[in-house]
Amino acid sequence: MSKDVVSQIDALFHPKSIAVFGVSGKKLKLGNFLLQSFIDIGYDGKLFPISPDDETVMGLKAYSRLKEIREPVDLIVISVRPDKVPQIIEEAVHKGVKGAVIFTSGYGEKGAEGRRREKELVNIARKGNLRIIGPNCMGFYCPSTKLSYFPGLSGESGPIAFISQSGSLSNIVAFAGNLNGLFFSKMVSIGNSCDLDFNDFLEYFGEDPETRVIACYLEGVSDGRRFLKLAKKISTKKPIIVWKAGYTQGGARAAGSHTGSIAGNREIWDAVFKQAGLIRVENLSELFGRLGAFINPYLPRGNRVAVVSAPGGPAVSTSDACEQAGLKLAVFSEDTKTKLSKLFPELGTSVSNPVDMGLSVAFDKTIYPRCAEIVGQDENVDMILIFHFVIDEEYAESLIAVQNKIRKPMAIATNMEQLKGKDFGQTFKTINPDNLPKILRRLYESGISMHYTEQSAAKTLMALLKYKEFLDKNRQETES
Amino acid sequence: MSKDVVSQIDALFHPKSIAVFGVSGKKLKLGNFLLQSFIDIGYDGKLFPISPDDETVMGLKAYSRLKEIREPVDLIVISVRPDKVPQIIEEAVHKGVKGAVIFTSGYGEKGAEGRRREKELVNIARKGNLRIIGPNCMGFYCPSTKLSYFPGLSGESGPIAFISQSGSLSNIVAFAGNLNGLFFSKMVSIGNSCDLDFNDFLEYFGEDPETRVIACYLEGVSDGRRFLKLAKKISTKKPIIVWKAGYTQGGARAAGSHTGSIAGNREIWDAVFKQAGLIRVENLSELFGRLGAFINPYLPRGNRVAVVSAPGGPAVSTSDACEQAGLKLAVFSEDTKTKLSKLFPELGTSVSNPVDMGLSVAFDKTIYPRCAEIVGQDENVDMILIFHFVIDEEYAESLIAVQNKIRKPMAIATNMEQLKGKDFGQTFKTINPDNLPKILRRLYESGISMHYTEQSAAKTLMALLKYKEFLDKNRQETES
Repeated sequence: MSKDVVSQIDALFHPKSIAVFGVSGKKLKLGNFLLQSFIDIGYDGKLFPISPDDETVMGLKAYSRLKEIREPVDLIVISVRPDKVPQIIEEAVHKGVKGAVIFTSGYGEKGAEGRRREKELVNIARKGNLRIIGPNCMGFYCPSTKLSYFPGLSGESGPIAFISQSGSLSNIVAFAGNLNGLFFSKMVSIGNSCDLDFNDFLEYFGEDPETRVIACYLEGVSDGRRFLKLAKKISTKKPIIVWKAGYTQGGARAAGSHTGSIAGNREIWDAVFKQAGLIRVENLSELFGRLGAFINPYLPRGNRVAVVSAPGGPAVSTSDACEQAGLKLAVFSEDTKTKLSKLFPELGTSVSNPVDMGLSVAFDKTIYPRCAEIVGQDENVDMILIFHFVIDEEYAESLIAVQNKIRKPMAIATNMEQLKGKDFGQTFKTINPDNLPKILRRLYESGISMHYTEQSAAKTLMALLKYKEFLDKNRQETES
Repeated sequence: MSKDVVSQIDALFHPKSIAVFGVSGKKLKLGNFLLQSFIDIGYDGKLFPISPDDETVMGLKAYSRLKEIREPVDLIVISVRPDKVPQIIEEAVHKGVKGAVIFTSGYGEKGAEGRRREKELVNIARKGNLRIIGPNCMGFYCPSTKLSYFPGLSGESGPIAFISQSGSLSNIVAFAGNLNGLFFSKMVSIGNSCDLDFNDFLEYFGEDPETRVIACYLEGVSDGRRFLKLAKKISTKKPIIVWKAGYTQGGARAAGSHTGSIAGNREIWDAVFKQAGLIRVENLSELFGRLGAFINPYLPRGNRVAVVSAPGGPAVSTSDACEQAGLKLAVFSEDTKTKLSKLFPELGTSVSNPVDMGLSVAFDKTIYPRCAEIVGQDENVDMILIFHFVIDEEYAESLIAVQNKIRKPMAIATNMEQLKGKDFGQTFKTINPDNLPKILRRLYESGISMHYTEQSAAKTLMALLKYKEFLDKNRQETES
C-alpha cells in the first residue's frame, strides 16, 4: 500500500476539479473563505461551490449537491456541521471523488464519541477509493498547483514541505515564512488524521521531487514504529526539521483537546530524534532559523567555529553560546592572525577568536566580509558565526561572494531590528523590507542562515554538524 | 566616599561644557564622530574641539590645548593615542575638569603593561578631583542633558538606565531599544573602568530619580562583595536586569581581551543572581523582553498562568514553555468556562486552559481581548500569556483597556513578523512601523510585555514572580 499512498497523495495535490461545501451566496460562511483562497491563488482547475439555496456563489455557478455536477470531481472541501458530513462522504464515494478535506471540527479532539464518528467516515470512504484529510484541519497549500487554504497566500514555490498538526499554524508558517525568504513546495494541515496521517505525508514528501527539506509541527504520531523507520530512511536523503510540542503535562493535555494526539514523554522523543537524525526546534523563530540553514547546506567537517563580531560584548556572549551548544572556538593559524592584524587597527580590537573588529566597521563596510573570508580560509575553521547587528543589501551580496569562495557553513546572528527596515542614524543601514524575502532566499541558497539570537545561530551550526554525523554513521552502517 | 561618588557622577551627567580631543578640521577622525554625536542630540552647553592644527572644527572654534580655554571645562572626551593621554589628564587636573571619558583603547585589555598605564592615569587624576570613565569605552548617553556617544541617537528620555561593559553594544541597545519602545534615562559604557567602575554607576542609578529600572551588560566586576551588597539593596527599590557574558572558557577568554575582565564561573554567578534578586537574560532579545515587563509591572500573587491563543499548535507549545519555566497552568472556574463557551463556537476551540479560540478570531477581532478579560478576572489566574501572531494598533489599545481592569501581569508572545509592518493578506493587520515605538511604550507602561518566542514570554512571567518573592523575603527579613 506504500506505493499506493504516495501516488494517491500526489493525485490529491494535483486535482483537476474541486467542490467546496459550506458556502453561501448570501452570507460569509467558512466555505466562502476557503473558496476565496483558491480564487486568490489562481487555481486553474474547475471550482464547484455546493449550495442548495443559491444559483451562484462568489460569481461561480453553484450546485445543490455533488451528483448534479456532470463532470468528474477530484477533491472536495467540507466545512459543514459534523452531522451532515457522512452523507457528503457517501455521495463522494459514489461520484468517484479521490480526496476529501474535512475542515469540520468536533471529532476525536472532543473524546470517544468523536472518535467513533471518525471511524464511521473512514468506513464509508473505504467503500470507494476516497482518502480523507482531517477532520479538524485546513488541508492543502501547494503554490505549483495553486491550492490554498487561506485567502492571500503566495503562489511562489520553494523547496520546503511542511506537515502541520495545527491548522492556523500552517497559515502562519506560510505567510511569515514568505516574509522571511522561506518558500514552500507543499503544505498540509492534517488535523486529527483519521485516514491519511502524518506518516503517509512524510513518506510522500520523502519522494516528492519538489521537496528538498521537510519541516513539521507535531504533537504525536499514531504509529511510532513506522514513523521512526520512515524518518530514519528519509533523513538520509532530506533533512527533517521537527517542532514537537506537548511534552509537559499541560502541553500534552492541550494536545489531546487540540487534535486528539497522545503526545508522549520527552525521553522517548529524545531517543527518536537521535536515531532518526531529526533536527529539533522549539518555536517558530528556531524553525525559520534552521530552515534557512538546511535549504542548501554546506556540512561542517568538525566542530571548530570562528566567531566574528564588531560589538565586543556580543563577541563574548556569542562565544558562550557556541560552547554551550557544543561547539569549540577554533584556534587560528598565525597566518590568519597576521592577515587580520592588517585589516583593522590594533587598538580596541582582537585578532584572536572571537574576532572583535571594534568600531572600524562603522567606517569601512568591507571589513566584515573581508574578515569572514580570512577566517573562512583558515583550515582550522569548520564553520563561521557572524554577529552583525544590521545588514543591508550590499553587505548580504558581499557575504554571498565570500561564501562562494570558502564554502563552509555560515550563520549570521542579527537582530529583530533588521526586520523593521529602519536605518540606525547615518551609519547602519538595513535591508529594505520589500527586498528582504528575496535577499534572505539568496542567502539561504548560498548556505548562509539568519538568526535572531546568538544562541539560535550556535544551535543551528551544531544541528548541521549533528546531521553530518548522522549521515556519516548511516553511510558506514550501509557499507558494512 | 559613597555619597561623594553619587554626586560626582551626577555632575558628570550634567556638564556645562565639554572639550573633545582627537578631532580634525581636515579629515574624519574618531573625535569628530564623537563631536557630531553631541551636535546631533542638541547638547546646549559649550563644546570645545581641541586641535592644534585647526582654527575651526565642524564649524566650532578650535583650541590648541585645554589651558587656552578661558572658561571652566566640566568634562573632556579623549580619543587620541595612548601615549598622549597622560599629558591631557595632567592638564585637565590643573584646569579643574571634573571628568574624563577615555575612549582610547590599548590598556588593561592588552595585558600587564596596559594595566600599569591605567594606574598611571588614575594617579594623575587623584592629584585633583578628576574622575575617569574608561579607558576603552564610549562614555555617556543622557537624553535629558543631551549627552551622546554616537551620531543620530534620540533625545527622548525614558525610565531605563543601562550600564555596559561593551561600547558598541550600548549604541545598539540605544538605537534598537528606541525602535522597540524602550527609552532611557541614562547610559554609560564603562570599558575597563580603571577609576569609576560598575559598582559606582550601579550605586548612582540606584539613587537616580530619573531611573526606574536598571539594566546592564556585564562581563565581570572587580569588587564582588560590594557588588552583591549594593545590588541586593538596590533590587528592593528597582529591578536590576543583568545580561552576564563570559561564562564559558572561550567566553571568559574573550572577555579578558575585550575589557580585561575576570568573568568568573557560572555557579558563583548563579548564587549572586539569587541572593541579590537580579533578573537574568542571555541575549539582546531577552533583555528587551524583560525590560518591557519590568518598566511598570504588576507583580503576580502566584504561579498560575492562563494561556490564550488562537492557533492551536502554539497553545500547546506555549503550555510546554510555561511549565518548563516553572509556571503552572491555572484551572479555570466553571464560571470562566461558561463565559468562554459563549464567546466562541464550541467546535475547533477549547475553553479549558490553554484557551484555543480557533479560527473565530479571524472573523471577530474583539474575541482576543474579551477572552483575556474573562480569564484575567478568574481568581484562579495569577498571570496571562497571550500568543497572538500579529497585533495592530486597535488590538493593542483594546488589550490596554482590559489590563486596566484586571491588573495582572500580561505577556504577549508574538512574532518577528510583527516588526515588518507587513499585513498578512486581508485578515491579519500589523502595527505601522512608524507607530510601533509609541504603541510598545504604551503597552509596557500598562504592564504588558512583548516577546518573540513563547519561551521568552514564559520566562519573563516567571522572572516577575521570582522578583515578587525576592521582595517578600526581603521585607520579612527587614521586619524580623
